[in-house]
Amino acid sequence: MIDRYSRTIFRELWSDRARFDAWLRVELAVCEAMEGIGLVPKGQAAAVREATAGKVSAERILEIEAVTKHDVIAFLTHIEEIAGDPARWLHLGMTSSDVLDTSLALICREAAEHLLASTDGLLAALKKRALEHKMTATIGRSHGIHAEPTTAGVVFARWHAEVSRSRERLERAKEAISVGKIAGAVGAYGNIDPKVESIALADLGLRPETVASQIVARDRHAEFLNALAMLGTAVEQIAVGVRHWQRTEVNEAEEGFGKGQKGSSAMPHKKNPILSENVTGLARLLRGYARSGIEDVVLWHERDISHSSVERIALPDATALADFMLIRATKIITGLVVKPENMLKNLQASGGLYNSGGILLELVQKGHPRQRAYEWVQECAMAYLAGDGTFQENLKQHGEIKKSLSADEIDSLFDLTNQLKHVDHIIKRALGEA
Amino acid sequence: MIDRYSRTIFRELWSDRARFDAWLRVELAVCEAMEGIGLVPKGQAAAVREATAGKVSAERILEIEAVTKHDVIAFLTHIEEIAGDPARWLHLGMTSSDVLDTSLALICREAAEHLLASTDGLLAALKKRALEHKMTATIGRSHGIHAEPTTAGVVFARWHAEVSRSRERLERAKEAISVGKIAGAVGAYGNIDPKVESIALADLGLRPETVASQIVARDRHAEFLNALAMLGTAVEQIAVGVRHWQRTEVNEAEEGFGKGQKGSSAMPHKKNPILSENVTGLARLLRGYARSGIEDVVLWHERDISHSSVERIALPDATALADFMLIRATKIITGLVVKPENMLKNLQASGGLYNSGGILLELVQKGHPRQRAYEWVQECAMAYLAGDGTFQENLKQHGEIKKSLSADEIDSLFDLTNQLKHVDHIIKRALGEA
Amino acid sequence: MIDRYSRTIFRELWSDRARFDAWLRVELAVCEAMEGIGLVPKGQAAAVREATAGKVSAERILEIEAVTKHDVIAFLTHIEEIAGDPARWLHLGMTSSDVLDTSLALICREAAEHLLASTDGLLAALKKRALEHKMTATIGRSHGIHAEPTTAGVVFARWHAEVSRSRERLERAKEAISVGKIAGAVGAYGNIDPKVESIALADLGLRPETVASQIVARDRHAEFLNALAMLGTAVEQIAVGVRHWQRTEVNEAEEGFGKGQKGSSAMPHKKNPILSENVTGLARLLRGYARSGIEDVVLWHERDISHSSVERIALPDATALADFMLIRATKIITGLVVKPENMLKNLQASGGLYNSGGILLELVQKGHPRQRAYEWVQECAMAYLAGDGTFQENLKQHGEIKKSLSADEIDSLFDLTNQLKHVDHIIKRALGEA
Amino acid sequence: MIDRYSRTIFRELWSDRARFDAWLRVELAVCEAMEGIGLVPKGQAAAVREATAGKVSAERILEIEAVTKHDVIAFLTHIEEIAGDPARWLHLGMTSSDVLDTSLALICREAAEHLLASTDGLLAALKKRALEHKMTATIGRSHGIHAEPTTAGVVFARWHAEVSRSRERLERAKEAISVGKIAGAVGAYGNIDPKVESIALADLGLRPETVASQIVARDRHAEFLNALAMLGTAVEQIAVGVRHWQRTEVNEAEEGFGKGQKGSSAMPHKKNPILSENVTGLARLLRGYARSGIEDVVLWHERDISHSSVERIALPDATALADFMLIRATKIITGLVVKPENMLKNLQASGGLYNSGGILLELVQKGHPRQRAYEWVQECAMAYLAGDGTFQENLKQHGEIKKSLSADEIDSLFDLTNQLKHVDHIIKRALGEA
Repeated sequence: MIDRYSRTIFRELWSDRARFDAWLRVELAVCEAMEGIGLVPKGQAAAVREATAGKVSAERILEIEAVTKHDVIAFLTHIEEIAGDPARWLHLGMTSSDVLDTSLALICREAAEHLLASTDGLLAALKKRALEHKMTATIGRSHGIHAEPTTAGVVFARWHAEVSRSRERLERAKEAISVGKIAGAVGAYGNIDPKVESIALADLGLRPETVASQIVARDRHAEFLNALAMLGTAVEQIAVGVRHWQRTEVNEAEEGFGKGQKGSSAMPHKKNPILSENVTGLARLLRGYARSGIEDVVLWHERDISHSSVERIALPDATALADFMLIRATKIITGLVVKPENMLKNLQASGGLYNSGGILLELVQKGHPRQRAYEWVQECAMAYLAGDGTFQENLKQHGEIKKSLSADEIDSLFDLTNQLKHVDHIIKRALGEA
Repeated sequence: MIDRYSRTIFRELWSDRARFDAWLRVELAVCEAMEGIGLVPKGQAAAVREATAGKVSAERILEIEAVTKHDVIAFLTHIEEIAGDPARWLHLGMTSSDVLDTSLALICREAAEHLLASTDGLLAALKKRALEHKMTATIGRSHGIHAEPTTAGVVFARWHAEVSRSRERLERAKEAISVGKIAGAVGAYGNIDPKVESIALADLGLRPETVASQIVARDRHAEFLNALAMLGTAVEQIAVGVRHWQRTEVNEAEEGFGKGQKGSSAMPHKKNPILSENVTGLARLLRGYARSGIEDVVLWHERDISHSSVERIALPDATALADFMLIRATKIITGLVVKPENMLKNLQASGGLYNSGGILLELVQKGHPRQRAYEWVQECAMAYLAGDGTFQENLKQHGEIKKSLSADEIDSLFDLTNQLKHVDHIIKRALGEA
Repeated sequence: MIDRYSRTIFRELWSDRARFDAWLRVELAVCEAMEGIGLVPKGQAAAVREATAGKVSAERILEIEAVTKHDVIAFLTHIEEIAGDPARWLHLGMTSSDVLDTSLALICREAAEHLLASTDGLLAALKKRALEHKMTATIGRSHGIHAEPTTAGVVFARWHAEVSRSRERLERAKEAISVGKIAGAVGAYGNIDPKVESIALADLGLRPETVASQIVARDRHAEFLNALAMLGTAVEQIAVGVRHWQRTEVNEAEEGFGKGQKGSSAMPHKKNPILSENVTGLARLLRGYARSGIEDVVLWHERDISHSSVERIALPDATALADFMLIRATKIITGLVVKPENMLKNLQASGGLYNSGGILLELVQKGHPRQRAYEWVQECAMAYLAGDGTFQENLKQHGEIKKSLSADEIDSLFDLTNQLKHVDHIIKRALGEA
Repeated sequence: MIDRYSRTIFRELWSDRARFDAWLRVELAVCEAMEGIGLVPKGQAAAVREATAGKVSAERILEIEAVTKHDVIAFLTHIEEIAGDPARWLHLGMTSSDVLDTSLALICREAAEHLLASTDGLLAALKKRALEHKMTATIGRSHGIHAEPTTAGVVFARWHAEVSRSRERLERAKEAISVGKIAGAVGAYGNIDPKVESIALADLGLRPETVASQIVARDRHAEFLNALAMLGTAVEQIAVGVRHWQRTEVNEAEEGFGKGQKGSSAMPHKKNPILSENVTGLARLLRGYARSGIEDVVLWHERDISHSSVERIALPDATALADFMLIRATKIITGLVVKPENMLKNLQASGGLYNSGGILLELVQKGHPRQRAYEWVQECAMAYLAGDGTFQENLKQHGEIKKSLSADEIDSLFDLTNQLKHVDHIIKRALGEA
């Protein structure tokens, strides 16, 4: 995880310190569960908690690990150093993965919660701009080519809907990874009672793995990483949209340009959509981590530890990057300079060709076969594009069309408000406002 | 899609014929919706339906497309050829993608339904074997190394749980892609009333896209392809498990061997887990298609058509392969020759070392610091592994251990039923049976 | 492999018939090698060749395989049916993979040769357009924003260079997969002499695998699939470039539009870059197959057969799609309607801002600190962009700049030929022409 | 890049300090090139070099960048702060990417050189073990099932060959990324002479980009990342091989076990192949970065900066991880405890079934049709596997076989040295030693 692309909150969440805190939390929850059902004398967990408060040293644990080559044993050794005798009531009947996976669930869940909050920030920004530009007319484009009118608000609302779907996937992935496991070396509760697991996990707000192996199943983490990849891709969709808008020839919107910011070392005038390009790239990384994550699912027998090295990097990096992207995308959307006048200028530049679908429809409804009408309208369009008259005028003077459509009818079909009359319906459906 | 790896039902589902059938179904649903709210004279859809019944020719449509380079126009031209005048009431105010994407949703949903059924077949097979082998003891392995006992039933139940989670993802993906769109060239309902969409889609059992562009959003299809990749990976987990079991040295289970089947052209005695290896490979393909699918999500403005070539291949191939894998995995599980006697033999081969965790626990509960107890037990284990005594005997004779644990206590800790006493709980939790 | 996206030549190359032909070719080469060193009586291979000429039936082989579940055994059985006694001299000391992998190398090499030819077609087309438009001035864009001038020829030459690099990778991948193996069940030549391999492979134009397992190493095939993914990505770079050029607002080039072709079912005027969008999508599939291919590399011990199902689909599909993309890209480039007048219009639309780098440089050379000069030029640019004067005029009237640069000097810096004086050098370097 | 999985040398190579050092090196090389052809007064570069020696502060540059949002401008501002007037002769006619991409080439090349050295370390270790165990007989396995004999030396030699091929790919990738670019804003040498580029790059040991856009083409970096993914996959192949060998039931080799190391917190006796599992996982990350890297190739027009965020993470992390994997794999191979006696025990456990191919061959050479001979041998094998006699004995007593093969002939076919007689040839071919 690099500082440039991560918030402090994520760097702390994935720090050694936070990890060992979570381990202790899990060990104590299990110890208390055992106390609750009489397997351990009352008060041991409390004694360890008190003795260790503020005294757990990540450095010392790593020092011990350098010798034992086993992180949980190093951790327990250190806790025993500090807390003395009561510490021997920890980890009873447990395997390392009981601690590791349950605490990983705690950390991933917290990461997911931060990410959901960041997503909500982006959704709020998109909603605001969607409402603000609900009726800002712009030309819709398919294949990069002008098609028919829509509004900037519809575009923001579309991004809102896409991010919302990714939010749902993230919410489900959060549920999927909120699963712990206190079930022993191969998940068979060989030396521990399943009651201990259910009490301890309930205390931590987690569910037990349906059938654990030595570990919690890794399709859960793969789903989480994939949800991040999908979320990053949704943000990329926004970023690519902004980049298209900001192109010199289109110039319909541009990223806010900070004071003192320089666009180019050689070209002082340039204002580049660099934030949007930046998040476009980050989405690629998220897809890369998802790829690595799904390869972790298939393990040998009751587990092999090949997933671990992947997770040490992919989970911190992917969550922090996804969060960074969301924050940055929120900034892009909030600061975006939308240029309604340029949108209108571009819309009008195509000489009303976008009305051809409507004209065609009207001709069909007047009784002409679709394919014939299509050819008439195409003739008028192609003539205009070849520099001959306006499209509207050509239609009025087309030998066949004028038999069916009056000049007035054609003019009313060219009225922009006609094409945008259902925008209000779309925005309401997307943003859930009456 | 190759015959070798697909069922007829999937080849038909993705045929040109089925596609054009779905297009007609969509066009007629829209036409009827328009009739319903008075935009089209009553009876047109019915007339087209009657005129075209059994007469739509995929060949003829492809022939026209070779000229127009536009599939929907070719289709409509052909329908007009057959049905004459009433056909002009089709496609009113629609864009090609209204037809294409809505019918793609119909086909994907049907594919998903077949896949869910195939998944249910696999789940049933897994459940049966899990119950059958609920108490078939086997050694659990972590890192490929003997750990502690579990049962073959727990393994089947674990696979059942993993496939069940993939089934849930598929179910959600089915919902995600059961979305149509009758909203015109850029999704703004420029020439069509949203009421038409809601009536027509309700008739087809689909929901409308929240905010469409020219097309339905492609994160839906990416989610579908990813659900298939996850499902394939769950099947791969099973296959890899079977392959491990069938290894010569392990020999705890093997694929059923058909009459007349030959394992090797050079080695007549070989019985190889080729079905399991086969599905292991197919899972890689599914992950490949998922990769391609997520690259389809980010499109330009209101759409570009770059997703189309991907979908022509990835959707048929991925759904058919996933189905084939499920059917084949069901066959593997159903026919699997489980060898309880070999499982027991392997379990016992480690001289009861798997009880070390239980011994350790007992020593801690007798009051010894964990790390000291760990070293005592390790001494007994290492001595045994070095050829010195049995592990059980070494424990009984260990200077420190014998002060805390009697020979009887040690013997009772070596009793296998002790380690498996919670298996019933696991199986019930996984399979939902009291 | 679907007809829509493959040439007949590739469908035939990957047919059952071609596969069985290659198998026979390998078996006969080995038999002849054995005859050559006296391990088999002279004339057996010739006898089998004669007896089987035109009589090998793919259908019959598949029929036998349905029983034996083993393809090579089925093939040998069929050859024995036709050729009788001499057939028993085939496959001596060989394992199935000796036949399968050696013949796969023959087929892959042939596919690579077709692909290299198709690549050469694209390179020729790019070269022609590069020379044609060597001096067609156009604005270079970074971040989608106007930067400094270049020429359309430089763009074509850049694509030429990129495709050339991909061609080199393909050439190397062809070498990598031109490797056979006649080394027996685990590659140890247990029942066959390495001399047989070296003679037979030399006859087939292949090299022997350095250290074979049961099979040829799969990093070779992964390299091949990755070379195709890189080649597809190079084609995608071209396609995305064309799509940008064809955007309504840019309109600097467009795909040739066939007679009778229709751009849209609703909008008769539209001319969409659909060929370019199509190949953009196909590149995603190639990246997907490469992903699957690299997962085939790590196999168990001396081989497992999990790679086989991947290869049955990925190799035919990826080679055929890559070929199709190359042919289609060649068509796009050959037919591309380049619009020099629009390129010039867009270039000039930015009021000469692209000269800012040159002005800045001149000011520095006149002795001003870079950062101060940058600010002066930025002031003139920003004033122009705010609607105040022309950039050129603002520079001439800037209080500080005019102390160092005369109006004449500024005018000469605005001369386009100045910025393009090194284009000839670039084109020559790229296309290797004096 | 995390400390756990990277060497100091890589953390320094990718540090801010090293980056700014490389930038300065590039700027000075260009300045000197300009001095050489008279575009800049002699001695400026030397003056800047002297003034800045030991004084460039990464912190200060980052501080300035926080305001300008432009890294190269921040760097140049800082150099001007330190070196004063001569600094204005830097960056003349250059664009930021001239510096960034050329210095990135320097850093990537250095990374590649370290990686090649690490690869050589692994190759040396593999060669040593291959020679040491050249004739250590072991059973070759296909599908996880015993096939025919080979030697441990052949396995090491196979890994050597696979790593060697990956080394070649890395060597080529090093060449591919050893390319700089001093060609201005859009690669057209608008304000700089190509002679400057050729002199400066020659001085830095780089080649010029054939046709640059604003940047060096990104297929080069994609090739580099892919070469690392392939290299990582080759290492994974070794790791998976070790893991198979170390399985409890196989037990033919195991990782060296450090003093004080603990295998499991619950099971004191366990010795797990955790180093091999660790590198297995890291290979997944490398494949993930390769995936991200190939998405960087297709950029907009003369460049967009979306590749940059990917490269800030993927290049440092992928190179450092690949290096770490190589070092760790070298340690695994060097320390591997190979157990020839267990290899032999496993080999013999199959009762000589691995000779069936040889028997079959001999029968065919005695004149029997292959399929009939196959059935006879299968009968003897199946009888043995069903517990009936030994395979060797069954062959001797088989009604048909004994007519063609004497007991002596059968015995000599069962002689292990017979099957391994070509091992020497393989090892020499792989390791190039006479």
